[in-house]
Amino acid sequence: MAETKKKKENREQKNRTNYKNKNKPIKQNYTKRAPKGNLRKRNNETPLRIVPLGGLEEIGKNITLYEYENDMFLVDCGMSFPDEETPGIDTIIPDFTYVLENKEKVRGLVLTHGHEDHIGAIPYLLKQLRIPLYGTRLTLGLVEGKLKEHKIFSEAKLNVVKPGDEITLGGFKIEFIHVNHSIPDAVALAITCGAGTVIQTGDFKIDTTPIDDKVIDLTRFAQLGKKGVLALLSDSTNAERPGYTQSERIVGESFSNLFKKAEGHRIIVATFSSNIHRIQQIIDEAVKCSRKVAVSGRSMINVVNIASQMGYLKVPEGVLVDIETIKRYVFEQLVIITTGSQGEPLSALHRMAFSDHRNVDIAPDDMIIISATPIPGNEKLVTKVINELMKRGANVVYEKMYDVHVSGHACQEELKLMLNLVKPRFFIPVHGEQKHLAKHAAIAQVMGIKRENTLIANIGNVIELTKRSIKVAGTVPAGRVLVDGLGVGDVGNIVLRDRKHLAEDGIIVVALTIDSVTNEIVSGPEVVSRGFVYVKENEQLIDDAREIACDILEKCYLSRVRDYGTIKTRLRDGVSRFVYEKTRRSPMVLPIILEI
Amino acid sequence: MAETKKKKENREQKNRTNYKNKNKPIKQNYTKRAPKGNLRKRNNETPLRIVPLGGLEEIGKNITLYEYENDMFLVDCGMSFPDEETPGIDTIIPDFTYVLENKEKVRGLVLTHGHEDHIGAIPYLLKQLRIPLYGTRLTLGLVEGKLKEHKIFSEAKLNVVKPGDEITLGGFKIEFIHVNHSIPDAVALAITCGAGTVIQTGDFKIDTTPIDDKVIDLTRFAQLGKKGVLALLSDSTNAERPGYTQSERIVGESFSNLFKKAEGHRIIVATFSSNIHRIQQIIDEAVKCSRKVAVSGRSMINVVNIASQMGYLKVPEGVLVDIETIKRYVFEQLVIITTGSQGEPLSALHRMAFSDHRNVDIAPDDMIIISATPIPGNEKLVTKVINELMKRGANVVYEKMYDVHVSGHACQEELKLMLNLVKPRFFIPVHGEQKHLAKHAAIAQVMGIKRENTLIANIGNVIELTKRSIKVAGTVPAGRVLVDGLGVGDVGNIVLRDRKHLAEDGIIVVALTIDSVTNEIVSGPEVVSRGFVYVKENEQLIDDAREIACDILEKCYLSRVRDYGTIKTRLRDGVSRFVYEKTRRSPMVLPIILEI
Repeated sequence: MAETKKKKENREQKNRTNYKNKNKPIKQNYTKRAPKGNLRKRNNETPLRIVPLGGLEEIGKNITLYEYENDMFLVDCGMSFPDEETPGIDTIIPDFTYVLENKEKVRGLVLTHGHEDHIGAIPYLLKQLRIPLYGTRLTLGLVEGKLKEHKIFSEAKLNVVKPGDEITLGGFKIEFIHVNHSIPDAVALAITCGAGTVIQTGDFKIDTTPIDDKVIDLTRFAQLGKKGVLALLSDSTNAERPGYTQSERIVGESFSNLFKKAEGHRIIVATFSSNIHRIQQIIDEAVKCSRKVAVSGRSMINVVNIASQMGYLKVPEGVLVDIETIKRYVFEQLVIITTGSQGEPLSALHRMAFSDHRNVDIAPDDMIIISATPIPGNEKLVTKVINELMKRGANVVYEKMYDVHVSGHACQEELKLMLNLVKPRFFIPVHGEQKHLAKHAAIAQVMGIKRENTLIANIGNVIELTKRSIKVAGTVPAGRVLVDGLGVGDVGNIVLRDRKHLAEDGIIVVALTIDSVTNEIVSGPEVVSRGFVYVKENEQLIDDAREIACDILEKCYLSRVRDYGTIKTRLRDGVSRFVYEKTRRSPMVLPIILEI
Repeated sequence: MAETKKKKENREQKNRTNYKNKNKPIKQNYTKRAPKGNLRKRNNETPLRIVPLGGLEEIGKNITLYEYENDMFLVDCGMSFPDEETPGIDTIIPDFTYVLENKEKVRGLVLTHGHEDHIGAIPYLLKQLRIPLYGTRLTLGLVEGKLKEHKIFSEAKLNVVKPGDEITLGGFKIEFIHVNHSIPDAVALAITCGAGTVIQTGDFKIDTTPIDDKVIDLTRFAQLGKKGVLALLSDSTNAERPGYTQSERIVGESFSNLFKKAEGHRIIVATFSSNIHRIQQIIDEAVKCSRKVAVSGRSMINVVNIASQMGYLKVPEGVLVDIETIKRYVFEQLVIITTGSQGEPLSALHRMAFSDHRNVDIAPDDMIIISATPIPGNEKLVTKVINELMKRGANVVYEKMYDVHVSGHACQEELKLMLNLVKPRFFIPVHGEQKHLAKHAAIAQVMGIKRENTLIANIGNVIELTKRSIKVAGTVPAGRVLVDGLGVGDVGNIVLRDRKHLAEDGIIVVALTIDSVTNEIVSGPEVVSRGFVYVKENEQLIDDAREIACDILEKCYLSRVRDYGTIKTRLRDGVSRFVYEKTRRSPMVLPIILEI
């Protein structure tokens, strides 16, 4: 019984979604926003509303809206990366509909740290909504570059905060708390309003020996926990992994060993450009070995510049050399820091592997360290690069073999510690797919959070919190907006479906000219294909398809079918059927009728 | 200096490949086969030639040709799976050119086991070359189904062998040696000819407690090693993994624990259909818990049928029930064994997860066990299914959490044991990408095989072996042939390139009709796009593109350009430039000129 009902709901949901989304940016759970009156007051207590507009049941595009009485603000505004489901797309950003509908209430955007999945969509939001930004120095430094690229920096209001600071946005007070992560200057937020205090951890790990000696401010979490925390929103990325995430420092030790092993040879290290502590450790080790450091890859050069200027990266005079000048140095004097740790096809490491890099030819016995783990979906790309580097005789060290990478996210024991310090009444696992959220919820239960006090939400859910209750009180538009070139949101489901169809079997165009007076075909049909079959070796097939098209047109003419729509449909069906019978393929068939 | 030369060679290789392959099946290393005379005799000793035609520097399509004097035979004939580089392709098979060029010499095809990457391409070979097949009972049972599907079973000559048997193919004697693997009836081969004995392990692991109690025949490997082995070709799949691969039996223990935990609920187990011992363990556990077993998924039903009929699977009377009848049983009486452990979009588990399965609706508290590891490239597909199942409230157990899967391939310690027993003079790591082969070669060196006696080959290499030497003596055509629908090899680089282009940005067709006498445009230009932009919301852009096309055509007319080729080129360039400027996208532009 329960099943049947569920199935029916699913079907209805599906139908509705399909219908609504057809020519719109893709949205999950598009329903009209819950009536306002209903959400306002109950039991004389104004609820705090938390609306995750991204980052739940997905990895990426983190953005959360907080709403209390007449005030709203956003935490983070990230992008996510396209995959095989979104061919040709450059970037995926959140759907801002609900934010824009409430323009006048939104007091600001508060940032936890400078990773793309937390700041990448800011330019797209700011173009539609001028709100002040709040973040730590490095975070805003990275945002600045982004805004300049989009030519909107001069209008933006960037407010630098530091851990320990508190800001006021309408009825909210927001305190910044230092945390460890794979980028410096990351913070958690303690958000206080009439309903209570909510802690959103942002991305974090507990590193007791971080490179900058600034350990996560556990004391502050403990103090807040003692005072009483209404709800905790905590990072679920590594909720499946038992134990503790290792300290960043362990990677330095590995570098030290590997650099010794590589004596007499060139060293190339690929890592994430945003991992400034990692880059610091590479530079430190290079200095110890009296090597020069060259930097390759646009984003790496960019971040190294920003981080050095701002003092986050400490590079002794004379160590950095321009990649264009490395020919002046012998191999054993060099360390090259490069992008491409994810095997990205246009990255510097990829170009090196495939002999396409202007300054670096991989040589036998080069020591290449890939200081990163493949993000799910990138495994094959990374393997391809590793194989290619090895074919050139390089000595490639990647994560499976040595401790050349550690995660930036907390594992199970750290998550437990956070839950234990904060002791929230309600718990909302965030930053993860369903499997991470479910696992994190299970961990919370082990830590004594009641099952009914834990909420696994989806994006677009309006979570209503009072001192006594947590619930989903409605949904608002939320989902993904696709950015392709200059177009934001102009590629939707139909275009994507067509792209996938075209990728599968290509296209056959059937073009002809009809005399609009006599209804006779005066030219064509021409049959042209792309991505279907190599035509020169399959002329007969194309000729036969043309014959089929001719037959169909003749029948239409004889049976006095004059409507172009009908003729096109018959051409499409007839040619498709013929081609499928002959090849078991279903290319897109596109009839074009010109008229004179 | 060395670098420069290398780079030049690379470039030349690339150019040659590009040119040769343009409209052919994609081939790696296509060079004309080495002159025969050169390969024949040297120092009065006929060399044994081993030509891997697949399975090196790749995972999949394993096929190896052995050649001695006037005789050749093949070991295995597998397929590999398409990926994002081969959109729309169904199957990838080896390039048989060299085999077919030597038709008259090929004495047979010898099979090591029944996995797709070892038998999947057999029908395509047999259609072009009638040679006898040799394999164990189960292997040939699985081949039989394949040949029947392709309607060539009646003409095929299948010869059943068993471990310990020896067959003669021309100047070769081939002995079959029992090994453990993730499918029963797997064998290694000891291949003896005038040049000596070569051992090809096939896929193997060392399982001292296998489900059928048949431990790999280590004694025979030891005996052969004692007598002297010229060369070993050994499975490199797990060469990166330290230690031993666990016994298949450990999975049975996990099932036992999980089945207990699932008391009162339905159990669904997804695994590879070919892993008959795994299926046996599921059935055994179901019997212990007095549950019925239903099977879902075409290949699973198929293999369970074949394996039961042949006696490889032992199912007590009354345990198996038809999936169509499961509604008759309460959940706690059921175990469903299903395909879909790799998250494949059309598989039974995927359909269950997305409420699209005819007989199974996932219910809260269903225990779902995914008894497999994602094959590289499938990680995201599997995660998608897990997330979806969890959303429906199911309890999903996957590898990271419990011992519900073990590999079928030997890890480093087992590889060392094999090297130690066989003590080959020469070593050729096979079955793996470069990174696996390189690691396996390093392991061999630790075991005392000299560096110069180890050869990391690529497909198409002609490896020449004498008692004293190993070398690559030339190359023959080898690579991949793409199967798309009924077409074998009719999709090549150009078609793939077009498909990828179409997937990225779609297509714009510019169609017009020209009066061939007056050279005037009598109809059009019409501009039609697919997969580019949602047209209804971007009419202006399409209109503007049409204007651009009109301008170009007018200029052509006025400047007396009459050649359709030139007009098409100008249309393509002009419209592309306009569209790129407006959108930063590069759809394919296809001009079609009709003539009256």
